[in-house]
Amino acid sequence: MRLALDLAELGCGWVNPNPMVGAIIVKENRIIGTGYHHRYGENHAERDAIANCSESPEGATIYVTLTPCCHQGKTPACTDAIIKNGISRVVIGSADPNILVGDKSLSILRQHDIIVETGVLKSECDALNPVFFHYIQTKKPYVIMKYAMTLDGKIATVTGASKWITGKLSRTRVHQDRHRYAAIMVGVGTVLSDDPSLTCRIPNGHNPIRIICDTTLKTPLTAQVVQTAKTVPTIIATSSDDAARIAAFEQAGCDILIVPKYQHHVDLQVLMTLLGERNIDSLLIEGGQTLNWSALESRIVHRIQTYIAPKLFGGETAKSPIGGRGIREPSDAYQISPPKITVLGDDILLESEVLDVHRHY
Amino acid sequence: MRLALDLAELGCGWVNPNPMVGAIIVKENRIIGTGYHHRYGENHAERDAIANCSESPEGATIYVTLTPCCHQGKTPACTDAIIKNGISRVVIGSADPNILVGDKSLSILRQHDIIVETGVLKSECDALNPVFFHYIQTKKPYVIMKYAMTLDGKIATVTGASKWITGKLSRTRVHQDRHRYAAIMVGVGTVLSDDPSLTCRIPNGHNPIRIICDTTLKTPLTAQVVQTAKTVPTIIATSSDDAARIAAFEQAGCDILIVPKYQHHVDLQVLMTLLGERNIDSLLIEGGQTLNWSALESRIVHRIQTYIAPKLFGGETAKSPIGGRGIREPSDAYQISPPKITVLGDDILLESEVLDVHRHY
Repeated sequence: MRLALDLAELGCGWVNPNPMVGAIIVKENRIIGTGYHHRYGENHAERDAIANCSESPEGATIYVTLTPCCHQGKTPACTDAIIKNGISRVVIGSADPNILVGDKSLSILRQHDIIVETGVLKSECDALNPVFFHYIQTKKPYVIMKYAMTLDGKIATVTGASKWITGKLSRTRVHQDRHRYAAIMVGVGTVLSDDPSLTCRIPNGHNPIRIICDTTLKTPLTAQVVQTAKTVPTIIATSSDDAARIAAFEQAGCDILIVPKYQHHVDLQVLMTLLGERNIDSLLIEGGQTLNWSALESRIVHRIQTYIAPKLFGGETAKSPIGGRGIREPSDAYQISPPKITVLGDDILLESEVLDVHRHY
Repeated sequence: MRLALDLAELGCGWVNPNPMVGAIIVKENRIIGTGYHHRYGENHAERDAIANCSESPEGATIYVTLTPCCHQGKTPACTDAIIKNGISRVVIGSADPNILVGDKSLSILRQHDIIVETGVLKSECDALNPVFFHYIQTKKPYVIMKYAMTLDGKIATVTGASKWITGKLSRTRVHQDRHRYAAIMVGVGTVLSDDPSLTCRIPNGHNPIRIICDTTLKTPLTAQVVQTAKTVPTIIATSSDDAARIAAFEQAGCDILIVPKYQHHVDLQVLMTLLGERNIDSLLIEGGQTLNWSALESRIVHRIQTYIAPKLFGGETAKSPIGGRGIREPSDAYQISPPKITVLGDDILLESEVLDVHRHY
């Protein structure tokens, strides 16, 4: 199963909104076939492993990181392939998030006298696909808020300068995440101050869909994201009704998404629903402190990624990662899980889940 | 030597400004005596171990974490004790920071046909006493800047509330450090806003000397630190010349230290020299963002302790750990070493050394 997990990872960035899945076929203690889901629309891991078998899989065991599907989608049902090829035992990691579908798969296999074992390395298998499990259940993107700060909590100096805070390894990791997740979002403030391209700059990387949160449509038509919108998909989420200006952006290749206002800015809850409807299963927010606060307060954020660099900026007016109104009492703080720690050269990456407590204020 | 290191730690908080030292005496592969420096003014580790021997140490080996002294101080020279007791081999961890004294000790031992080996577990032994090594060489305190912040870099909410950011384990660790280090310093701003007692609240803890940095002598006579100054030593560092007010503080038991001004506040470089002259070998700064910046800019800080709690406050105006003027360009940032990471329950403690680069601005 550990090998199947490693194989599954190879589909990272290419299978969305499908899950990453890996499979291994074992016969008489020998691995006779390995496979994974390579890319959205292509074979599922089970069929890939069966196709790769060096001998007949009859009587073999298949280890698969997620319950095989039992329905025809872009590809035929995997349960059929398992049955037809005479596999006699199926060992499963994660359960299908749709319990009815999952149970149906297990029943079909058992009706064909196949031995089924479930929950093997379940937590590792589940951790592989938080995005998939979230998206399949909510139809809204899984949202990761990312920021880089100094050890004294600054995302820029007093002058607003922020290039660079972290080192090379951290920045490479950010580009891996731009590849991994379906979309990236910044606020118009970041477009105006940094004019970023928001592309993925690693070999064989996959550009995320770019989303600019721009309530009043202040993005300059000369901005990099607009100028390159014909090659890299770009959505501008706005509450503006300026038809002429909207037409200009559309002509430049941007996709304009009209979103109602909530507390003077684009309603982020509504925006998430609209993005989910467009098959966007995951969203990396690389915003400034204003968008970060709006996102946190709108309760659309699931995970916080904090990159910390071993340096100090100081400065009473230097910005910290989350701005806005803030909470008033420490007991009202947004609670997050104890961070997972990753050392990236001299930097440290702390990753936490936002805990979904009921909040009053 | 590892056992000697563990024993040395038992003197933590009691031996300042002496170093923590441990010693083990081994004869025919059996440990026949163990010792450590218990408390300033009492026996050094070598004499303690000899006194604890279960049999004659003649012909034995002594493992000691620091070069034995060869001069009469509060107690007689340890080299004499080693020679008189017929110990035949001395294994040493750290070298004496005073090279002349250290070499003299080694020569004396070798003149008496004692085998001497040096540098065993040297880095571990050195790491035991950063304060001692610094103080003995500079005669100024080793300064640790400590702050607790949320994962979004806030030391308080927008209202200024900061109780509590970290959990119980972190707060216990802070009190262990108050015990470990000779003195604690805050700015008058912290006294005015929090009225702290700055004592060490762990069993058998040792209160640090309290230092209030108060350029214009604004500390209220009713403050806790003043009210308890007769039981816990309290120094107020000020540039004020208000004789009547100074007399009132002195009557309350405070020790007033007159320090010249530098850039509108107490000259912290001068203050460190004055504290060093008073045998204060180590200082924990638990200040607000203003004192933290002044200390960093005055280049008196050697180590940064950042406690990070898994929560988010948000807030454009919420304070971050280091304020003041700040640096302007990211390339001018104060560089610190990649942090040592300690997990304390749900919190994380990151500890870095300030790197002593030459700075222009």
